[in-house]
Amino acid sequence: MEKNQNGEARNEEESKPSSYGSDGSICGYDSLHRLLKDNLNPHHFQEVNRLLTGLNCGKALEMIDLPESATALSVEHGFDLQAFYFQADKELLREPRVVRVGLIQNSIALPTTAHFLDQKKGIFKKLKPIIDAAGSSGVNILCLQEAWMMPFAFCTREKRWCEFAEPVDGESTEFLQSLALKYNMVIISPILERDINHGEVIWNTAVVIGNHGNIIGKHRKNHIPRVGDFNESTYYMEGNTGHPVFETAFGKIAINICYGRHHPLNWLAFGLNGAEIVFNPSATVGELSEPMWPIEARNAAIANSYYVASINRVGTEIFPNAFTSGDGKPAHADFGHFYGSSHISAPDASCTPSLSRNRDGLLITDMNLNLCRQVKDRWGFRMTSRYDLYAETLSSYVKPEFEPQVISDPLLHKKPL
Amino acid sequence: MEKNQNGEARNEEESKPSSYGSDGSICGYDSLHRLLKDNLNPHHFQEVNRLLTGLNCGKALEMIDLPESATALSVEHGFDLQAFYFQADKELLREPRVVRVGLIQNSIALPTTAHFLDQKKGIFKKLKPIIDAAGSSGVNILCLQEAWMMPFAFCTREKRWCEFAEPVDGESTEFLQSLALKYNMVIISPILERDINHGEVIWNTAVVIGNHGNIIGKHRKNHIPRVGDFNESTYYMEGNTGHPVFETAFGKIAINICYGRHHPLNWLAFGLNGAEIVFNPSATVGELSEPMWPIEARNAAIANSYYVASINRVGTEIFPNAFTSGDGKPAHADFGHFYGSSHISAPDASCTPSLSRNRDGLLITDMNLNLCRQVKDRWGFRMTSRYDLYAETLSSYVKPEFEPQVISDPLLHKKPL
Repeated sequence: MEKNQNGEARNEEESKPSSYGSDGSICGYDSLHRLLKDNLNPHHFQEVNRLLTGLNCGKALEMIDLPESATALSVEHGFDLQAFYFQADKELLREPRVVRVGLIQNSIALPTTAHFLDQKKGIFKKLKPIIDAAGSSGVNILCLQEAWMMPFAFCTREKRWCEFAEPVDGESTEFLQSLALKYNMVIISPILERDINHGEVIWNTAVVIGNHGNIIGKHRKNHIPRVGDFNESTYYMEGNTGHPVFETAFGKIAINICYGRHHPLNWLAFGLNGAEIVFNPSATVGELSEPMWPIEARNAAIANSYYVASINRVGTEIFPNAFTSGDGKPAHADFGHFYGSSHISAPDASCTPSLSRNRDGLLITDMNLNLCRQVKDRWGFRMTSRYDLYAETLSSYVKPEFEPQVISDPLLHKKPL
Repeated sequence: MEKNQNGEARNEEESKPSSYGSDGSICGYDSLHRLLKDNLNPHHFQEVNRLLTGLNCGKALEMIDLPESATALSVEHGFDLQAFYFQADKELLREPRVVRVGLIQNSIALPTTAHFLDQKKGIFKKLKPIIDAAGSSGVNILCLQEAWMMPFAFCTREKRWCEFAEPVDGESTEFLQSLALKYNMVIISPILERDINHGEVIWNTAVVIGNHGNIIGKHRKNHIPRVGDFNESTYYMEGNTGHPVFETAFGKIAINICYGRHHPLNWLAFGLNGAEIVFNPSATVGELSEPMWPIEARNAAIANSYYVASINRVGTEIFPNAFTSGDGKPAHADFGHFYGSSHISAPDASCTPSLSRNRDGLLITDMNLNLCRQVKDRWGFRMTSRYDLYAETLSSYVKPEFEPQVISDPLLHKKPL
């Protein structure tokens, strides 16, 4: 893998969008969807797309038209811009409830060796035109990636990166509040939080900013990883905010932060509280998780009859001091490639194509929230779930004296004839 | 769609394996894997395969060699035969525990208008050489599809099909017991059960036959669908056997029957009881569920750190009397295309290619069960799951007075500036 010994963040994602395999892949390409579309004949592509994205031949997920101002910004600033539309059936007693959702994925702006304040301001400056493109496109709810205001430094185990942490009403929130107000847009802002009122401890937190620029509330990451270079348990504990659903002007939303996507019960609890869209702001790298990435999000959308919006940062972040990864290999200075690939999954098992694996991007998707209840009525997963049975199972399981339900073959140790 | 007004089952899967689109797809093909392999260049295929199946470039899921007798049977009887191998790391304190698992998918043998006894015997006769191929290949644990001893007649809502039901120790079990003994093979036999000791009620049940031909036990389907033509709740109730794990000579196994795959809590409970392989014998059709099919199985394998073996029947079954589907469309005589596509998912997010969408098939897979604990140790999903939190959540949710955790924007009804 290429490394920059000066600790500089590489900017290949802007200069060489899809031309080579610095991400460890064996061939350069921008996204799976584009690779398949460019290399299969249209008939085969249509069928492969039906199988992989749940889109029926006759009922394509159409792209929506965006204003010239948004596309101009994407060209000028070199970010991927894609837009889609999820359909729902017409109902007789409810009007359609179409919400326009935006997701932003991005690399950091300056090398991790730059002054922390410059790094943060650099990200603000980089994000501004992308947020403007979302605002001018009429996005109702916008979500940024996990810990968007800093490099994902938890691989280092160095505590000095805690300096990036901010209170819920800190400068990152203020930056977004003005844009939320300007564009009448709910913004979900996942930050590294410092809890001033409780001894200045650190949390991994999503702040929910209302469309009037007000802070509606916050949610703290429920499940903290200890896998590979994800040494996050070194920095913060499991969240203490439960599974809140935020009732906003544009629908009921929740946030499942990063590693929580591996926990079906976490997804479930947001659904039980009434979420219609669950955002999954993440930071994850190719070698570790790429084949899981679409599976878990789509399964959550299917199982819980809501939309899931998945966001992952992009690029490779090089840190000043080398670190080891607990795998016996030599010390190195980067986390691996954050593969982007942000996308949206619908409750009917369909999903959008993903944003680029290499470039900053804005994904805009119109979704009719009526689809959630329509799928519930059709498939009946809630009705058939037998939650009483599982409440008992879990209550029993958490007791130290729990005995699993095992039926042993009485002839287990008999030799074959 | 083609229909045969004489109520005959079509046998196109044997005569025209991949040449046309009677299944409603826009182009004839045998499986997604083969379509991609045949139409992409090798470099692109390798990368697409990495993304879709979790197989890294250098660590392919190799096919295992099968005896000539097995391949000869597959040629003679025209069934798809594929074989793969999942690797695990070498451990210092445990020997590898490699189990050879077989899955059989098949269409029915005779038209649904034939005498019921002839239909059942016809299926026995059809399955015999496929089971022989599994046995002579050294398969340790074999699983058949859901209600394998009958057509999947629940679309009709006619109660006369209940005649197919058998007690757990009935003739279908007897047929398999002799083969289990002969081949030293555990066999999972999903049948329509008649419970003689409890008023002759009907259940959807999997019988677990030990490698000495003994009956180890049974499990009854936990979640019953009421969706599309799956009128199964007309015939039987939710199972009353909990989430048993069967300790066999070759590993700890469980069975999640068909619709239970949509319920993450069902998968979870088998995991909590210690399953290393969970079989999902199913009967499901293309229009309804095909894009969900690989997602749910693979997610269950990832989330619970066990192997999942998915089986679906194949072909289109035509019934004597037309029925409606609750969708306002005219009455018709078939359920749609059962798309086969049986496959195995591993806890590390990888999966095998799928068997044919159109033909009978036997999938043989060697799996090192040590991979389950290796993945648990690496990813820590159990350790980080916070089951105590969710035991409380579910116990609260099932109370009629449950109030969801909702944080409403206090400015919800304020007009934008």
